[in-house]
Amino acid sequence: MRVRNRKGAAELLEQNQQIVVQNPTDFKGKWAERFGNDHPIHIEVGCGKGGFITGMAEKHPDINYIAIDMQLSVLSYALDKAIEAGLPNVQMMLVDGSQLTEYFAPGEVDLVYLNFSDPWPKTRHEKRRLTHANFLKTYQEILPSEGQVHFKTDNRGLFEYSLASMSQYGMTLQKVWLDLHKDEAFAEENVMTEYEMKFSKKGQVIYRLEAQFPKK
Amino acid sequence: MRVRNRKGAAELLEQNQQIVVQNPTDFKGKWAERFGNDHPIHIEVGCGKGGFITGMAEKHPDINYIAIDMQLSVLSYALDKAIEAGLPNVQMMLVDGSQLTEYFAPGEVDLVYLNFSDPWPKTRHEKRRLTHANFLKTYQEILPSEGQVHFKTDNRGLFEYSLASMSQYGMTLQKVWLDLHKDEAFAEENVMTEYEMKFSKKGQVIYRLEAQFPKK
Ligand SMILES: C[S@@+](CC[C@H](N)C(=O)[O-])C[C@H]1O[C@@H](n2cnc3c(N)ncnc32)[C@H](O)[C@@H]1O
Ligand SMILES: C[S@@+](CC[C@H](N)C(=O)[O-])C[C@H]1O[C@@H](n2cnc3c(N)ncnc32)[C@H](O)[C@@H]1O
Repeated sequence: MRVRNRKGAAELLEQNQQIVVQNPTDFKGKWAERFGNDHPIHIEVGCGKGGFITGMAEKHPDINYIAIDMQLSVLSYALDKAIEAGLPNVQMMLVDGSQLTEYFAPGEVDLVYLNFSDPWPKTRHEKRRLTHANFLKTYQEILPSEGQVHFKTDNRGLFEYSLASMSQYGMTLQKVWLDLHKDEAFAEENVMTEYEMKFSKKGQVIYRLEAQFPKK
Repeated sequence: MRVRNRKGAAELLEQNQQIVVQNPTDFKGKWAERFGNDHPIHIEVGCGKGGFITGMAEKHPDINYIAIDMQLSVLSYALDKAIEAGLPNVQMMLVDGSQLTEYFAPGEVDLVYLNFSDPWPKTRHEKRRLTHANFLKTYQEILPSEGQVHFKTDNRGLFEYSLASMSQYGMTLQKVWLDLHKDEAFAEENVMTEYEMKFSKKGQVIYRLEAQFPKK
């Protein structure tokens, strides 16, 4: 996601420490304390402008959500939405998804969402894809045994890659959608992301999968 | 595939016993004898009118192909093509794919192809799908350790189902194509089936996967 640098973004994050965690390493193993309850924790890696997390948090008050992005300006727009929604079950972190084991204890996260992750189509950038084996290993560490990753994208190449990468890592595909918006039953529970709205308006097919790690 | 009953189809098969195996159980464990060499054996389950097998056999003289279908009239059209091509490395069987262990010894088949298999969209017909766990078990028995199934289809529902079914069976997805005909590199080796020509002309996307069974 390319956005212009937003003036005052850093200050906005600092002024909203109740939502944007400043020293995320401090909360490793202590997220239940931070949220003030022991509800399941779902995270989105690469949340972008945050429409998904806010929408999910509204729909599921009994789940705690943490939105993660490594771009300051992008996360500041997600913060705008979270402030406006004023929900107790949304937190944010400005960190790199490759470092998640620094911020979460083993099994502390119940579900990982990836939505419209950057495709990095060139083979030499393969390791940057959020479904590369290295990232899967990181998710597996912070998830419980048989934890799941739910992934949506419009990008054919990235989806093809991810199906094979997850399968070769040892994950099991629980369900696959090759044209998500044709599934009327799922439409009710689906929360669209910013990219999802943009690409589906252009007539692009949206892919989705739910994949499960093996028993620990 | 719905075709009208073809008059004389049974006679045509009988008259061409050098191509259409009459008592396939007799050849279990003896296919190398039948072919007169020990080249790898690749089979297509549900070959329809046989354009794929004949095309592959022309391209790969060092591989032995066996085309399988359970519809007499359909197989008779496949036979027409095989007769015309006059290739030593094509055989045919009029049998049900669910009974393959009757005709092949463990590990006797090197690769299983499924092309545009009947989708059976209703849940109550799930067991008829050629990628249902019961069929996968059959393929696994006649393939060697880490044997592969290569599957093409235009049918979204069947492809979604097959990705999950194969994964849940314990197979690994080696590679997935969500728009096969966009892959210029693969176009050279791709042999189109009758259904593939028909559906791609209509603008349908063609899906493909290569999946591998675990170590025996
Ligand atoms: C294409 S955008 C999609 C945003 C949003 N999920 C949506 O669907 O609208 C991808 C986002 O992932 C973020 N991102 C990419 N790699 C990341 C990483 N390693 N850690 C955290 N965020 C990452 C980018 O900064 C960008 O905001
Ligand atoms: C839709 S046609 C596709 C034919 C061909 N593969 C193509 O791509 O043009 C499916 C074929 O599979 C055959 N078939 C379906 N179930 C089968 C089974 N259990 N065993 C053998 N053949 C089967 C049908 O008779 C039909 O000819």
